Amino acid sequence: MYSNKQKYLAEFIGTFFLLATVIGSGIMAESLSGNIVALSLLGNTIPTGAILVVLITMFGPISGAHFNPAVTLVFLLRREISKLDSTVYMVMQVAGGLLGAVVAHAMFEMEIIQASAKLRSGSAQWLSEGIATFGLVLAILLTLQFRKNAVAMVVGLYITAAYWFVASTSFANPAVTIARSFTDTFSGIYPAHAPAFIVAQAIGALCALGVCSILLTGTDVESR
Amino acid sequence: MYSNKQKYLAEFIGTFFLLATVIGSGIMAESLSGNIVALSLLGNTIPTGAILVVLITMFGPISGAHFNPAVTLVFLLRREISKLDSTVYMVMQVAGGLLGAVVAHAMFEMEIIQASAKLRSGSAQWLSEGIATFGLVLAILLTLQFRKNAVAMVVGLYITAAYWFVASTSFANPAVTIARSFTDTFSGIYPAHAPAFIVAQAIGALCALGVCSILLTGTDVESR
Amino acid sequence: MYSNKQKYLAEFIGTFFLLATVIGSGIMAESLSGNIVALSLLGNTIPTGAILVVLITMFGPISGAHFNPAVTLVFLLRREISKLDSTVYMVMQVAGGLLGAVVAHAMFEMEIIQASAKLRSGSAQWLSEGIATFGLVLAILLTLQFRKNAVAMVVGLYITAAYWFVASTSFANPAVTIARSFTDTFSGIYPAHAPAFIVAQAIGALCALGVCSILLTGTDVESR
Amino acid sequence: MYSNKQKYLAEFIGTFFLLATVIGSGIMAESLSGNIVALSLLGNTIPTGAILVVLITMFGPISGAHFNPAVTLVFLLRREISKLDSTVYMVMQVAGGLLGAVVAHAMFEMEIIQASAKLRSGSAQWLSEGIATFGLVLAILLTLQFRKNAVAMVVGLYITAAYWFVASTSFANPAVTIARSFTDTFSGIYPAHAPAFIVAQAIGALCALGVCSILLTGTDVESR
Repeated sequence: MYSNKQKYLAEFIGTFFLLATVIGSGIMAESLSGNIVALSLLGNTIPTGAILVVLITMFGPISGAHFNPAVTLVFLLRREISKLDSTVYMVMQVAGGLLGAVVAHAMFEMEIIQASAKLRSGSAQWLSEGIATFGLVLAILLTLQFRKNAVAMVVGLYITAAYWFVASTSFANPAVTIARSFTDTFSGIYPAHAPAFIVAQAIGALCALGVCSILLTGTDVESR
Repeated sequence: MYSNKQKYLAEFIGTFFLLATVIGSGIMAESLSGNIVALSLLGNTIPTGAILVVLITMFGPISGAHFNPAVTLVFLLRREISKLDSTVYMVMQVAGGLLGAVVAHAMFEMEIIQASAKLRSGSAQWLSEGIATFGLVLAILLTLQFRKNAVAMVVGLYITAAYWFVASTSFANPAVTIARSFTDTFSGIYPAHAPAFIVAQAIGALCALGVCSILLTGTDVESR
Repeated sequence: MYSNKQKYLAEFIGTFFLLATVIGSGIMAESLSGNIVALSLLGNTIPTGAILVVLITMFGPISGAHFNPAVTLVFLLRREISKLDSTVYMVMQVAGGLLGAVVAHAMFEMEIIQASAKLRSGSAQWLSEGIATFGLVLAILLTLQFRKNAVAMVVGLYITAAYWFVASTSFANPAVTIARSFTDTFSGIYPAHAPAFIVAQAIGALCALGVCSILLTGTDVESR
Repeated sequence: MYSNKQKYLAEFIGTFFLLATVIGSGIMAESLSGNIVALSLLGNTIPTGAILVVLITMFGPISGAHFNPAVTLVFLLRREISKLDSTVYMVMQVAGGLLGAVVAHAMFEMEIIQASAKLRSGSAQWLSEGIATFGLVLAILLTLQFRKNAVAMVVGLYITAAYWFVASTSFANPAVTIARSFTDTFSGIYPAHAPAFIVAQAIGALCALGVCSILLTGTDVESR
């Protein structure tokens, strides 16, 4: 059983994210000039959410399906993965991400190697990345605890929402951030702006680890 | 087993909501001027539906994942939550919602504290809120009874539909209503119009409690 | 175990519906003038698919969640519902649908009672309704047999697809057809054109009943 | 248990597909002239993904729900289907697909038999088809191994993503390719360009078979 304080905190954080999404996605949708760019974001959001459900279902039983150094970091701190493994995981994630960028360019007959010129900087963007990663990691940790089979769906839907409710369109993943600095297309980020994103993501992930432990400490939860 | 009257009532209410959705969402979609504003509503709907599935899956096992004073009120009347707890829940929901509004503004570099100027009043709007909340609470209560694990998905999809089939875009939640009165963006509501929305929502929730008891009375349902 | 002929028939029908959807939805999407009307159809499709999942999950354990006289007719012919019950079900479905139309108008501050002027007639429309209802009923019957808990999701997704792949936007339901003849909005149908739709729907439903029995005869399937 | 190399490979391939999707779908969405054509693709994607979930749920227990000669080929090579059965399956898939094309035209009152004039050729298109089919077949094989009940959802969501992240809009299916060469509408392909697509699809499917065996060899997986 959960303590009252844990319950109250759950209601607080949940309603926080609900309203951040309702209001944030409304602002995002309206701000995309003339609303037509909203179509591009929709065409970016739906496939990304969908492929995450697929990839986590496929690869989860093999590797845990992190695909995200921030997630791997959290599992390292929880001692659920070794130092060596976590290092190789991160290398593989970055390498896989870069190959993904290169192959995407090849499929669309573009320059294979590109550098993005899209500026994404400033404290509002960093706040966005911190919150997006906080929510992502907290969702993963709690769902793993309560309903492991739902993690794939939860991550896919979370990113679907986060593309719209944070101002940065939710990178929330250092490997994604690095790879996206190598594309000068819709989803790019100017390479010099990537490090600050990664720092914000790491901070968000660590906060999620802390909040998760507050929410679960002292309880005796069975996974179902 | 259910009585014939209960079955007939279920067919009646179900087909009522089906047609209200088919016809209502068609009117909404067509009325959004030139249909381009429909894109903003779509960009608001999809993230909101998605995050609800995520949040209820994450927090359901801890607090029940109400995030909604109208839902908490119903559980209080069903004596499934204490008076003290329900009061604190409502406070937490409103506080979390307000923080969500503030942080959404911060992420998009807007004025932190705003008051909405968007007029949402009149009997058609109140009818919309009453029906939206009636359907939401009834869906929660019946799904909790029959298939507890599906509640997260049911609420996410219900709100996805209700954004379009009622004329008010379905606030259906007093905490959401209060928070949205503090944003002068797409999803806002003029603060003086919020109280009537909340009254309509409470009435809708109470009607759902009554109809639910008619639908289930005398039956010996096992949860699955 | 299934016979070879049953397997081959399943591959044939499945690939038939896959291509009808791929090609049909492409034609529909392109034909909606300038593609902007496609937004209205999207705003009509997503809520309808979503609410069907909700309603069938909520009411399925009580009444079976038909909401559709064509479905009730099929269960009558399978002797899974009595004559009396099936008659009352159909009356409830039509009455609930009409109230849904009226309340949708009230919520959007329109004339409460309307008659549609939207012409939907001709053999291509009837073929569309026959195929849409055939697929819907076959999907329901087979999914009930194999994976009862998936029926809600299957019906929601089927209608999501059928809105686009048949030329009539898939009414596939006599109660829906009658109610939609009482609205002069996006989803309406000229009342004099409704009876032929209902005939086409009944034929489609009966064909599905026949094909289902071919696909399952002689097998000893366990529901799971 | 999986070896470290298998885990690392899973992280690599997973992050590869994640980034190919994030970046590829962004390019696709932006490139659709003025973004309005994106609406047509959305109106083609959502129904196709939805119907796949429905069809695989309905027919999976009967025939395995291949609907795709590339999938049938892989099961033949895994000796999970006989030579005779696999041949008849492919014939049924092509025949069903052609009937789907014809009936789609009939429903929309178009010329019944058409030949597409839409050019889809060149190495970037073939790379697209190879990658799309590789991912599809790998997703099917791994999900069948780990979580059989999720295959329908995984295939539906995979195709939803692949419509956007590869430049060819992901045919990924020889029967689909043949049928689409017989429609001069949104989804068509110039008949003379179809054979190279089919070769690319076969290569992609065979690569998936090989990678799957690397990922699973030596493990003792239980299906769940």
